[in-house]
Amino acid sequence: MTKPLNKVFIASRGEIAVRIIRACRDAGIQTVQAYSTADSETSAVHMADESICIGGPKPSDSYLNATALIDAARHSGADAVHPGYGFLSENADFAQAVEAAGLVYIGPQPEIIRMMGDKVKARQCAQEAGVPVSMGSPDTIESDEQAIDIANRIGYPVLIKAAAGGGGRGMRVARNEAELKDNIGRAIKEAETAFGSGAVYIEKFLERIRHIEVQIFGDGNEVIHLGDRDCSIQRRHQKLLEEGPASVLDPETREHIRNAARQLGQSLGYRSAGTVEFIVDPRTREFYFIEMNTRIQVEHPVTELLTSTDLVAMQLAIAAGERLSLKQDDVKLRGHAIEVRINAEDPNKAFIPRAGTITQFHMPSGPGVRVDTHVYPGYDLPTNYDSLLAKLIVWGKDRNQAIARLRRALCEVHIEGVTTNVKFHQRLLAEADFLNNDTYTQFVKEQMYSKHPMRNLL
Amino acid sequence: MTKPLNKVFIASRGEIAVRIIRACRDAGIQTVQAYSTADSETSAVHMADESICIGGPKPSDSYLNATALIDAARHSGADAVHPGYGFLSENADFAQAVEAAGLVYIGPQPEIIRMMGDKVKARQCAQEAGVPVSMGSPDTIESDEQAIDIANRIGYPVLIKAAAGGGGRGMRVARNEAELKDNIGRAIKEAETAFGSGAVYIEKFLERIRHIEVQIFGDGNEVIHLGDRDCSIQRRHQKLLEEGPASVLDPETREHIRNAARQLGQSLGYRSAGTVEFIVDPRTREFYFIEMNTRIQVEHPVTELLTSTDLVAMQLAIAAGERLSLKQDDVKLRGHAIEVRINAEDPNKAFIPRAGTITQFHMPSGPGVRVDTHVYPGYDLPTNYDSLLAKLIVWGKDRNQAIARLRRALCEVHIEGVTTNVKFHQRLLAEADFLNNDTYTQFVKEQMYSKHPMRNLL
Repeated sequence: MTKPLNKVFIASRGEIAVRIIRACRDAGIQTVQAYSTADSETSAVHMADESICIGGPKPSDSYLNATALIDAARHSGADAVHPGYGFLSENADFAQAVEAAGLVYIGPQPEIIRMMGDKVKARQCAQEAGVPVSMGSPDTIESDEQAIDIANRIGYPVLIKAAAGGGGRGMRVARNEAELKDNIGRAIKEAETAFGSGAVYIEKFLERIRHIEVQIFGDGNEVIHLGDRDCSIQRRHQKLLEEGPASVLDPETREHIRNAARQLGQSLGYRSAGTVEFIVDPRTREFYFIEMNTRIQVEHPVTELLTSTDLVAMQLAIAAGERLSLKQDDVKLRGHAIEVRINAEDPNKAFIPRAGTITQFHMPSGPGVRVDTHVYPGYDLPTNYDSLLAKLIVWGKDRNQAIARLRRALCEVHIEGVTTNVKFHQRLLAEADFLNNDTYTQFVKEQMYSKHPMRNLL
Repeated sequence: MTKPLNKVFIASRGEIAVRIIRACRDAGIQTVQAYSTADSETSAVHMADESICIGGPKPSDSYLNATALIDAARHSGADAVHPGYGFLSENADFAQAVEAAGLVYIGPQPEIIRMMGDKVKARQCAQEAGVPVSMGSPDTIESDEQAIDIANRIGYPVLIKAAAGGGGRGMRVARNEAELKDNIGRAIKEAETAFGSGAVYIEKFLERIRHIEVQIFGDGNEVIHLGDRDCSIQRRHQKLLEEGPASVLDPETREHIRNAARQLGQSLGYRSAGTVEFIVDPRTREFYFIEMNTRIQVEHPVTELLTSTDLVAMQLAIAAGERLSLKQDDVKLRGHAIEVRINAEDPNKAFIPRAGTITQFHMPSGPGVRVDTHVYPGYDLPTNYDSLLAKLIVWGKDRNQAIARLRRALCEVHIEGVTTNVKFHQRLLAEADFLNNDTYTQFVKEQMYSKHPMRNLL
C-alpha cells in the first residue's frame, strides 16, 4: 500500500518552505518550490531542486491561487503537494482539488479539514467524542432573541465567534445584553466580509485563561498525541512565544487534556499532523476545546525538541501510505522547549510590520539552540506576507534552563535593516509573572502594555 | 562545600571559547576572554563580558604563556579558569599554578593531568585498573637491545611512541628489526625536540583498527560514562569526523569498553570531563587503552546530542564544588550523532591550512542540526592557530537519518574567502565503506587518497 514520494510540490513560502525542503532532502525526495514574483530571492527558492513562479505578489494571485498551484504541481511532475501553514493549508476545496488532480495531499483528509473549518461543527464533533467544550450555542445563531436567550442561560461575558473564523480572528466580547445586541450585527457583517459566511455562534467568555494545545498525529487509523504546548503569550490573538510542556498543568489534568485531544483525533480517523486547541482555567483545572488546526503549525519545533521526532518527516511518511512508526508508548517527552517568533515588527507601535532590506542577520547557535528561518543578510523583505523572520527554539532540561538559554540566545541575535521584536522578547523574559509561569492570553496587553498609548490595538 | 562561580576566565580561543561563554551565560556566570593580538576580532571577544589581551600572536606569547594568563585572570577578578582544549589544557604545571594563585581550575586534579600526560604511566594506571592495554614495553625504552627484545616478544609491526606525546603526535611504525633500529634513534630525537623529553616506549601496532573513545565525567568521587564515540576518520592522526555511538561495536563489547573507561576514571577519583581513548579491532572485538585526555574535547557535542546533557555546564557545576547531578542509570543515549570539523584547509593539497578573509559564511540550521563556531562574515582568519572554522553536528534517530541530515546540512554550507574541506566531507559521505560503517584510522589515506600524489603526507 505504500508508494514512496519522489517529488514534493511546496505550496507555501517562508521558513516553513525551508523546513519542508529539509525534511524532503533528508528523505531523499526532490522538491519544487512555488513562489510569487515577490519571493524570487527567498531561501526556499535557492534551496529547492526546482522552483516555479506561480503569480504576482498578492496572495490571491499566487499562494491562494489553487488553480495556478495545481497546474504548476502537475507540470513539475510532482507526486504530492505540501501546503505548509497559512494560505490554502486549511482549505478543504484545495485539498480535494489536489487529490482530484491525481496528486497526494500532504495533510489530513479533505472532509476532516472541511468539518474542522466550521467551528460550530468542530465543537459538535468534540462533544460527540467526549471532549469538553465551553458552554455556548449548540448551533449557529439565527436571531438576536436566540443570542440573548443563550447568553442569559450561560451568563455574561460571552464571546461571539464566526463559524468560519479561527486562529483568533472574528471574535467579539459582550459583557451584557446591551453589548450583545450592539455586537451581534457587527460580528455577522465582519464574518461575511472576512470569511464569506455570516454564521456566528456564542460561547462563554472566560477571563485569565491559558491557551494550551495538544499535538496529535495519525495515519488515518491509529492516532497518537505528542504532548502539549502553552501558547498564552499573544498579541492580537497571534502567538509570540510557545513552550512545552504546559508546566502550569498538574500531571493529572495534563494527562486528561492529552487524552482528550487524542480521543478527538481517533474519533475522526485523523491522518497527518493536527493540533487540538484548548482554553484552560488553571485555577479550576477546567479545559475546553476551542478548535482544531488541520495542518502543521508554526510552533511544531517545540514538540520536535521535546519528543526527538521530525513531524514533517512523519507527514511525508504517512503521505506515502506508511503506518505510524511510533506507538503512544514510544512517545517520551524530555525537558522543556520554548520557541519565540522573531518578527519584523515594532513592539512600540502595536507590533505593526516593518519592511526593509536586511543588512545584518546573525542568529545564535550552539547547545540546545535551533533556528528555522528563510532570511539571510542582504535579503529584501517583501511587504506582502507575514512578518516572521525566524523562529528561535531552545531546549533545556527544565523550564529554568530553557529560559536561561533563550535569554543567552536572544543576546546573540544581531539583525540590522529592519525593526524586530527581539527587545520585546527580552522584556518578556524579565517579567516576574512570566518567570513564575503566571500568564494568560491577555498578558501582553494587560500586563506589559497596560499603560501604552496603543494598547487597544493589541 | 559548594561555592558558586561568579566569573570565569577563558584561557583558550576559537569555537571552544564561544562554547564556554554560552555555558557560563546559561548559568549566570560572568566571563573574561583572554586573547592574543591576532584574535581581537574573534567572536568570543565580542561575546564575553570582558576581554583582556594577553600577548602577541605566537602561542608562546599568549595562549601558552601561563604567567600572563594567570596574571590576567587575577587582575580581572575571576574566580576560576577554563583552559578549553589545546594550548595549556593538559599542562599539569598550569593547572597547579592556577590553583596556587587561589583560582579554581575547571578540569581534573593537576596530579591526574600529570600522570595521564605521561603515556607510559597512563598505561600502567590503566593496567592496574584492570583496563586492557596493548602488548608493549612496561616502561620507557633504555636501549636498542631492549627495544629489539621487546619487539621480538610481542611480534612486528610495532609502534614507537613518545611518552610525553599524545593525540597521535610522535609515533613511528617499525615492521622489522632493521626498521626498528633505524627508527628508534629518530623517534627519541623527535620526542626531545617536540616534547622536551626523549622517553619513548613500544606498543604492538595493530592494522585496520578503529579509534573509539568513551566520555567520562566525575566529581572527584563518583565517575560515570556518557557513552562512546567512533573517531576513526582522520588525516595525519587528526580527527575529521566523529560519531556516536560507535555502532561497529556489538552491545556486549560496547558495555565492556564503557565500563572499562568508567573503571579507570573511578580508580583515579577523576574530576570533571575526560575521555578514555581505545583502539578496537572490530574483527576480534579486542580493545586496548591508548591514552586519556584530561580535558573537554572538540567532539564533545556528539555526546551532548546523544545524552541531552551539557558537558561544559557540568564542568562548571563540578568546579563550584557540586556533586554529579547524574547517576549512571540516569544517562540514557538516544539516536545517533555525527560531527564534522569544517576546516580552512585544502583537501587536495594534503589538507594544508588556508588563511584569508571570510567573505561569506552561511551555516545550516533546522531540525537536528547544531553549529558551534567563532567565525562570521568579514572575519579575517589568523594564520597562527588551528584551521577549525566550525563544527557541524547532526542528530538522527539512527545512523542513516543522521547521515542524511549531515548530507543535507553540508549542502547548505556556503563559505567564501577561504578554501574549506566541505567537499571532502561530501565525498566521504558518498563512500560505500563509510555508509556501511567499514572504516579504520587509515581509511582516508588508504582508501580515499590512495592514488593522490600527496598521500604520504596524510
